[in-house]
Amino acid sequence: MRALYKHHAGQGLAFDPSRHIPEPGARDVLIRVKKAGICGTDRHIWQWDDWAAGRIPVGIVTGHEFVGIIERVGSAVTQYQPGLRVSAEGHICSHTDYNARTGNAHIARDTRIIGVDRDGCFADYIVIPEENVWPVHPDIPDKVAAVLDPLGNAVHTVMAAGVSAKTVLISGVGIIGLMAVTVAKAAGASRIFCTDINPPRLELAKKLGAVEAYDASKGDDWVQDVIKQTRGEGVDVVLEMSGSPIAMGQSFQALRNGGTVAMLGLPAKPVTFDFNEHIIFKGCTVLGINGRKIFETWYQMEDLLLSGRLELDDIITHEFPIEQFDKAFQTMMSGDGIKVVLNLEN
Amino acid sequence: MRALYKHHAGQGLAFDPSRHIPEPGARDVLIRVKKAGICGTDRHIWQWDDWAAGRIPVGIVTGHEFVGIIERVGSAVTQYQPGLRVSAEGHICSHTDYNARTGNAHIARDTRIIGVDRDGCFADYIVIPEENVWPVHPDIPDKVAAVLDPLGNAVHTVMAAGVSAKTVLISGVGIIGLMAVTVAKAAGASRIFCTDINPPRLELAKKLGAVEAYDASKGDDWVQDVIKQTRGEGVDVVLEMSGSPIAMGQSFQALRNGGTVAMLGLPAKPVTFDFNEHIIFKGCTVLGINGRKIFETWYQMEDLLLSGRLELDDIITHEFPIEQFDKAFQTMMSGDGIKVVLNLEN
Amino acid sequence: MRALYKHHAGQGLAFDPSRHIPEPGARDVLIRVKKAGICGTDRHIWQWDDWAAGRIPVGIVTGHEFVGIIERVGSAVTQYQPGLRVSAEGHICSHTDYNARTGNAHIARDTRIIGVDRDGCFADYIVIPEENVWPVHPDIPDKVAAVLDPLGNAVHTVMAAGVSAKTVLISGVGIIGLMAVTVAKAAGASRIFCTDINPPRLELAKKLGAVEAYDASKGDDWVQDVIKQTRGEGVDVVLEMSGSPIAMGQSFQALRNGGTVAMLGLPAKPVTFDFNEHIIFKGCTVLGINGRKIFETWYQMEDLLLSGRLELDDIITHEFPIEQFDKAFQTMMSGDGIKVVLNLEN
Amino acid sequence: MRALYKHHAGQGLAFDPSRHIPEPGARDVLIRVKKAGICGTDRHIWQWDDWAAGRIPVGIVTGHEFVGIIERVGSAVTQYQPGLRVSAEGHICSHTDYNARTGNAHIARDTRIIGVDRDGCFADYIVIPEENVWPVHPDIPDKVAAVLDPLGNAVHTVMAAGVSAKTVLISGVGIIGLMAVTVAKAAGASRIFCTDINPPRLELAKKLGAVEAYDASKGDDWVQDVIKQTRGEGVDVVLEMSGSPIAMGQSFQALRNGGTVAMLGLPAKPVTFDFNEHIIFKGCTVLGINGRKIFETWYQMEDLLLSGRLELDDIITHEFPIEQFDKAFQTMMSGDGIKVVLNLEN
Repeated sequence: MRALYKHHAGQGLAFDPSRHIPEPGARDVLIRVKKAGICGTDRHIWQWDDWAAGRIPVGIVTGHEFVGIIERVGSAVTQYQPGLRVSAEGHICSHTDYNARTGNAHIARDTRIIGVDRDGCFADYIVIPEENVWPVHPDIPDKVAAVLDPLGNAVHTVMAAGVSAKTVLISGVGIIGLMAVTVAKAAGASRIFCTDINPPRLELAKKLGAVEAYDASKGDDWVQDVIKQTRGEGVDVVLEMSGSPIAMGQSFQALRNGGTVAMLGLPAKPVTFDFNEHIIFKGCTVLGINGRKIFETWYQMEDLLLSGRLELDDIITHEFPIEQFDKAFQTMMSGDGIKVVLNLEN
Repeated sequence: MRALYKHHAGQGLAFDPSRHIPEPGARDVLIRVKKAGICGTDRHIWQWDDWAAGRIPVGIVTGHEFVGIIERVGSAVTQYQPGLRVSAEGHICSHTDYNARTGNAHIARDTRIIGVDRDGCFADYIVIPEENVWPVHPDIPDKVAAVLDPLGNAVHTVMAAGVSAKTVLISGVGIIGLMAVTVAKAAGASRIFCTDINPPRLELAKKLGAVEAYDASKGDDWVQDVIKQTRGEGVDVVLEMSGSPIAMGQSFQALRNGGTVAMLGLPAKPVTFDFNEHIIFKGCTVLGINGRKIFETWYQMEDLLLSGRLELDDIITHEFPIEQFDKAFQTMMSGDGIKVVLNLEN
Repeated sequence: MRALYKHHAGQGLAFDPSRHIPEPGARDVLIRVKKAGICGTDRHIWQWDDWAAGRIPVGIVTGHEFVGIIERVGSAVTQYQPGLRVSAEGHICSHTDYNARTGNAHIARDTRIIGVDRDGCFADYIVIPEENVWPVHPDIPDKVAAVLDPLGNAVHTVMAAGVSAKTVLISGVGIIGLMAVTVAKAAGASRIFCTDINPPRLELAKKLGAVEAYDASKGDDWVQDVIKQTRGEGVDVVLEMSGSPIAMGQSFQALRNGGTVAMLGLPAKPVTFDFNEHIIFKGCTVLGINGRKIFETWYQMEDLLLSGRLELDDIITHEFPIEQFDKAFQTMMSGDGIKVVLNLEN
Repeated sequence: MRALYKHHAGQGLAFDPSRHIPEPGARDVLIRVKKAGICGTDRHIWQWDDWAAGRIPVGIVTGHEFVGIIERVGSAVTQYQPGLRVSAEGHICSHTDYNARTGNAHIARDTRIIGVDRDGCFADYIVIPEENVWPVHPDIPDKVAAVLDPLGNAVHTVMAAGVSAKTVLISGVGIIGLMAVTVAKAAGASRIFCTDINPPRLELAKKLGAVEAYDASKGDDWVQDVIKQTRGEGVDVVLEMSGSPIAMGQSFQALRNGGTVAMLGLPAKPVTFDFNEHIIFKGCTVLGINGRKIFETWYQMEDLLLSGRLELDDIITHEFPIEQFDKAFQTMMSGDGIKVVLNLEN
């Protein structure tokens, strides 16, 4: 089969036109991949930064967002049959610890991620444990089904924070931040404010429903403007998706007392942070967001997609055949594209 | 001053062109009423049914939904000045019991309601305790500000249940049920189903955002249709606004296991109910809804109104000068009008 | 193997000294049973009442509470090895519906219960799907490990309602109600009130930590006494474990506005109930309780048992070898025993 | 009247035997103080550290924990009469902002604190707004009623985190940390672990119910011990009461994925903190704790005190007549006493 894999401990990925098709175990399914999305994580792997060098095994097939068709099922599989169109939760665990056994497998301690810790989906076939399979509703097109993983990050962040009838600040409108704008609007946020330092992304955020999109490179006056527009109190909810220490501090300033911050963005290193001012005196709630709830977030995504309210067309900007992976990665890494999808159906 | 009052223990209300203006106490404000909405409760008082005969003191000024201008404040009032445009929470209590002291004054035990237990707002002036006053945001027009009380019932029901990214069944689309449709949509409900036995109201419910509006007078096939459209599970949330025992039973059937029912509609008498099938085996949650949270619901309303997403124009259908109160009540009671407002500014 | 089974469509159970040992499937474990508890459900099956006649397949091995040792595992089992001491969650489902996939498998729609819908644990061996197995902490003795299923009902009810620093009324102190007394106390209930019509059980409830234990057969004066002892408001929480319509009505009267009722007891038929007075005007929350959360409740049980605060010695009153099943059932059904355990280790 | 006040911008307090008795406004009550507790905040004011120098107006009467008798009420007071034994919530606000109007006045933006921003309770009389008065239950002795303010900090922290049937780590067992031990146990914590660097306080923590009390000055091996004792996962809940950056980092390590941290302790300055490891990857929840909920926490305290489960005798160690204030402060500041109370009834 065709596969994109990490061929050496350095930049880039290599294309193998004839890798062995993996064999499903008794409780696994083998899925023929139709489309797969390129994630920011894949960029780290491509660029072979410190995180990638410390975590990614050389030789691995990368990619963790996809839609495909079940090709074959293991002998002990009971729920699925070949021919079903599916996506999958890429966080795989043994289901033996506290969180995995109480509906929070997304924070199981022994999680291994496809395309990061084991072979991923930038290939014609991938093996997935039965319990990680997600049947895709027929009304959801392949292009969207290919990116349910990052959309799930956005949905989990928005739903964990709770935005219904609330004012929301989204700090950072990269791919997931942009998804969060349309998700938060669909989920009932009353007014959405955004910050970033990338003007075209800010423009798109407004198109997707933000009432204000501030260029944070121009100083922090926006904080007072947000406070002014929210009864002089600050927003009810912050979705921190930038990972920038400066943006974090400003976002907490723009939060009202008793508000909620959901943190998804990963700072590059430890942050010097004023717990007194930002958390304790404010009496606020901070939520760490990791992955997606399995499968609560997936059901919420399905409901939101079926509502017809999510606008993803301007976010999923490009699609390339897998053979043009280099162009696909360059399009994504240059910022010309936002969400770029690889097509394996050719 | 002009006032509409309950002049005898029988049908109708009487108009008094020269009633004494009430005197505010030390902690009260005197408000000059601009507009006041007619509620279903006012209809009960007009018709003098058993409930009204048992509760309403003859002689009282009726009406409990309004917007006005503060005319004068008592000597110990600290927060407000004459000239402010305000509405008010009509549930007044002594703030001495558990709920009143813990943010749940809407279910205080000694609550007295304006227009029901003490003089109300169908008059040029009304006295309100300072802590019940709600300053109205300048962007909210008088017509809407006059009906924040019933809108608050809808908002409290929707927000208590939690509808964000959820499927919702609204059982009964009278005035508050219709408001609940637009509120639920704005608050992020993914898909809204409605039932009633009044075709024009069902039509309006669809216009306001319901994906299905079933005529329950034609049998209960709709229950299976709802279940079919919700993964074969049933809806996540029911908002019970009919008070009909038959509708209640059907709505619980249409609810998924583990779902939530918020009950606002008042059955006329005790209901024979299958707790095993509807609540215990389903593992569901039932919430009793009374009034509006003071003032959490009011803030939520303000946020929803400022979001621009609430569609109230088709719900607030008529406005009459107070002198035409008879026509106003007939318009409302005949069903020709939905929410009818009395104007006192002429 | 030895087994107790439902030999005919009538009263009683039969003992088979040489039934075939069941064969585990690829994802099952075979467990050698050490001890098994007799439940109220088993009494219904013994007595062959309407419910039993409508649900129980003749020929089935009964029993659903037990502790044992894994004897053998299926070919696709990954988590467990023979020799491990385990209990098991007896609610088995396909893990394909919304609740099962979101951490609420206890209310999955296709649940089948061991000893009710498929062979149970009143036998030397039982087959259980791997994902239903619960390894028992070494500090928990067999006698207690044999009754984790009903203890789990009590724990789920208590924890769903939330009793920490709250006043609690337990309506009905049968087996699970008595367990709920010691669980609620350990879980932080500030003061516990109980009602029943069985004086010895009421006495035991006080020994286990109730501050008041009212004999409801002597009228409803107790309602006013509870209200008087709770600031004139009523209790924060009711745990309804009687299934009696009269007790239900009284319990809701004894609940404060805004309180919570967790309902576990099953009324024999639909109940005529005043929703206005008991739920809507009170603004209260009613929770249907079914089974136990899988496995959140099991972890909570383990934590509570390891805290050393649960007092179960007076509740688990008798133990008989399985051959004396008739005596065991009579002891339980006469009320001489409370929780009666069958021993299969002889 | 007698009063202890901040007489200069430096160390110590001065005793004035004949200060003017303050005059209550229309909505205030005048309270004759019986007993008043000395808080860690009072120590800062005594020592005149940077915080005190920046906040405390010279001339102010200090003290914010007390019990007394209502002596006189203002003309517009409706709820209370002279002669009532009361304590009071010392956080006073205008009740005009979002939090104050939605049951969260403890985080109102314009809060002023008695004994910090306006005259406090180290005096024979204090003036308090009516809505801040808390009538004390007759079964609660003066000694305890004098320290409901700090006990409330402990109760708010414990109840916000939620400890019922959970393992809890209390990081720092100063006065409030020790109170938190007995509160957490009474509120249903299954097992309590503590850390501090003060051996006698650790000893007392064990006496009050901690299963382990680690001396953190001896290294961080305790972290692994806690994890080992909690299924290898870590505790469910951390109550951060030390304000120490090192303790914070270790406590988050000892927390399980998905756990909750309630932060009350104030770090002296911004902390360098690993948000990725401690919050985001863990998917945990962090709660800022400020003051006490008004009055939910007060009701919870009353319930806990009436349960008879709080052990405060070893925490409230000393009582001195107000004239011996110097000895009282030295006893508290030297660590010989824990909670020290001033008596004004002589």
